[in-house]
Amino acid sequence: MKIVDVNVTRFKKKTWLGVDKDGHMHPSKEKISQTALIEIVTDDGFVGRYFTADNYLTPSARYDENTLTNLCSGSYIPAGTGDSLRDAIRKVRPVLIGEDPFCRERIYRKLFRMQRLGGSVPILDEIIGIIDCALWDLAGRYANLPVYKLLGGHRARIPAYGSIMAGDNYQSGLATPEDYGEYAKHLKERGYQGIKLHTWMEENWSDCVISGKPAVERDIEACRAVREAVGEEMPLFIDAFHDYNRFEALKLGRELEKLRFEWIEEPMDEYNMEDYKWLARELDIPVIGPETAKGKSQTRLQWILNGACDICRAGVMDVGGITQLMKTIHMCEIFGIPVELHSPGAATLHTMAAMMIPGRYYERGLLHPFLDYDVTPPWFNTPVDYMDEDGFVHVSDRAGLGYDINWDYIKDNRCD
Amino acid sequence: MKIVDVNVTRFKKKTWLGVDKDGHMHPSKEKISQTALIEIVTDDGFVGRYFTADNYLTPSARYDENTLTNLCSGSYIPAGTGDSLRDAIRKVRPVLIGEDPFCRERIYRKLFRMQRLGGSVPILDEIIGIIDCALWDLAGRYANLPVYKLLGGHRARIPAYGSIMAGDNYQSGLATPEDYGEYAKHLKERGYQGIKLHTWMEENWSDCVISGKPAVERDIEACRAVREAVGEEMPLFIDAFHDYNRFEALKLGRELEKLRFEWIEEPMDEYNMEDYKWLARELDIPVIGPETAKGKSQTRLQWILNGACDICRAGVMDVGGITQLMKTIHMCEIFGIPVELHSPGAATLHTMAAMMIPGRYYERGLLHPFLDYDVTPPWFNTPVDYMDEDGFVHVSDRAGLGYDINWDYIKDNRCD
Repeated sequence: MKIVDVNVTRFKKKTWLGVDKDGHMHPSKEKISQTALIEIVTDDGFVGRYFTADNYLTPSARYDENTLTNLCSGSYIPAGTGDSLRDAIRKVRPVLIGEDPFCRERIYRKLFRMQRLGGSVPILDEIIGIIDCALWDLAGRYANLPVYKLLGGHRARIPAYGSIMAGDNYQSGLATPEDYGEYAKHLKERGYQGIKLHTWMEENWSDCVISGKPAVERDIEACRAVREAVGEEMPLFIDAFHDYNRFEALKLGRELEKLRFEWIEEPMDEYNMEDYKWLARELDIPVIGPETAKGKSQTRLQWILNGACDICRAGVMDVGGITQLMKTIHMCEIFGIPVELHSPGAATLHTMAAMMIPGRYYERGLLHPFLDYDVTPPWFNTPVDYMDEDGFVHVSDRAGLGYDINWDYIKDNRCD
Repeated sequence: MKIVDVNVTRFKKKTWLGVDKDGHMHPSKEKISQTALIEIVTDDGFVGRYFTADNYLTPSARYDENTLTNLCSGSYIPAGTGDSLRDAIRKVRPVLIGEDPFCRERIYRKLFRMQRLGGSVPILDEIIGIIDCALWDLAGRYANLPVYKLLGGHRARIPAYGSIMAGDNYQSGLATPEDYGEYAKHLKERGYQGIKLHTWMEENWSDCVISGKPAVERDIEACRAVREAVGEEMPLFIDAFHDYNRFEALKLGRELEKLRFEWIEEPMDEYNMEDYKWLARELDIPVIGPETAKGKSQTRLQWILNGACDICRAGVMDVGGITQLMKTIHMCEIFGIPVELHSPGAATLHTMAAMMIPGRYYERGLLHPFLDYDVTPPWFNTPVDYMDEDGFVHVSDRAGLGYDINWDYIKDNRCD
């Protein structure tokens, strides 16, 4: 079987998400954005598909936006959805055409080589991951097996934690520690088996006016409010971004130990591994990382070897697709180091279902009091990451990545 | 799909192989031995198969045995072929029945847990590998894909080296350095892209009377004879077993450096990693290992972390099947450490075809001047590891592990 084409279909969608300068999402007024479907087509008629941003950026609004001020104006266009995606696919297409779609290792190696100088391909890092995921979908469709069973299944349902958006200044949004506490109570009722906070970023640094600089004290207040709201038993985590210095991070970590949080994530810039070696040595609470540091699996190996993390962190799009993520997971398994996956979506879910060693939780979200994450996006007939009342997300047993696509919606909303 | 049965079919075969006390093979008088076929059967009628000892112990004789004396009398019965195999399968069967055959990770984990105290299962280590290989064969048959494409293919042909048996005292066999030189010339003509020597073991330590204790000087003579016979360009390797002390191993290694050998393998007992740390530090020639040390992937991680090997070594049956071998390979890939696979066979071949980072060579053999390795065993219609004139072994594109079985032969030669 040979690859004969690689297509990009972009289609419109309503969104209630805006993005700040650093890439964090917040609720916004309703507007039109777009999502892209990548299709790898073979001479035998088999097709592998991947949706950029999978399904995790598609909550529906459940608030009256007229009552709100200061909403984000920037529309969130995930990496690989805009014109850069078409550019990039045009440039990698010649590498793919004629290749055996099952030879993912050979294809990865060819694409990886282009990375040295970028090969004039924008967002090549993401493209490698997108291509790999689409190839896994194709293999699953051909084999009539869900991807997690191609990988060697371990479990069909995974406990989910609710991953709350970064703080904002929306009234009854995420403006105060009390807001976090209230919302956490709601998430517990929904069934989530854990809750993660993203806290506040710098003041006035984007269209989203966020009140108050990031401050350890304020983070601690939010964490305390959440702990008090959900009781002693609920697993809690924090992603404190990367703004703090060592001593602030240590101070935050010490308080989180008292509040019995299960990990601390990215409190400092990840480019300086030395900071994390220091922090992981000082703290009892597990330090998890790296998430945003470049260098894929090799960077994760260095963090493990240097004791810069207690739990490893990796995501499908962080390390180059499902194939490379599984390699990272296998390495962590041999080290005996847990690895918690970054961001939700079908590819993440299938990978988690094939992990023998934790990875304990599926990160579901991002969530916000103004948004309803449990609404199925209109281009799917069934959700990618359905979560039951007990907080378990179920991996689909449909072939490939399990997308149940509403083709009418896509046809009616095509951009090109 | 559920597993409903696990069958063992043992069948007779002619063999010209005997085994010494340490498990090394030598040519013997013709006798009857047996091979076993393990079958995992599902409710949907799909079957996964694995042949113990795969195909690598099945050369044909091409000598007049009446002219020979001192032939090995012990018939080689590979691990998992005798009664212990039926015992073991009987004991693991309840773990497998009812399981989804695609959930290899979950099945491995269950079997692995039995290992702690052995679970009263003989040869459990091998059984885990055998079950895993049969499950991969089943997945490939179901998906209508060769296993290496399920794993993510990288290449369809692999350079092979000829792996020569341990020395003996058969006239015109492997009794002298000159014998090795002569035979190496023959292997070069056959097309092999490299040659590996196994040299002599202790005197009178088995039914096979081997003349002369193992000695560094004699090993060097054999290596020199081979280098002179095949010229400067042929890649050469040695597996010197594990009899030497540090200083003997160093002496051997230094001479091999002069003879431009590409690696030195297991010159000392592998249970003492400290010896290997010392040797790898001292020598320029790459030290490869571990092969026989217990502890699967984790032991290999320790060898890498401690600099006890320059090239990692692992085999399908050494680390627990294709699944675990791929994990080891993935770890080595992230470390940037080459990994050369131990022993031939269909499972090895499919794994190698899916490795992105070397693993450069397929180990073909074991070979001996008295034996013809290129004869297809009678229970196959086509060989598992066909090698072309240029010394490339081709991985089968048939579904699963690619066995092309002669069912008539098996039916006619069943033991039970």
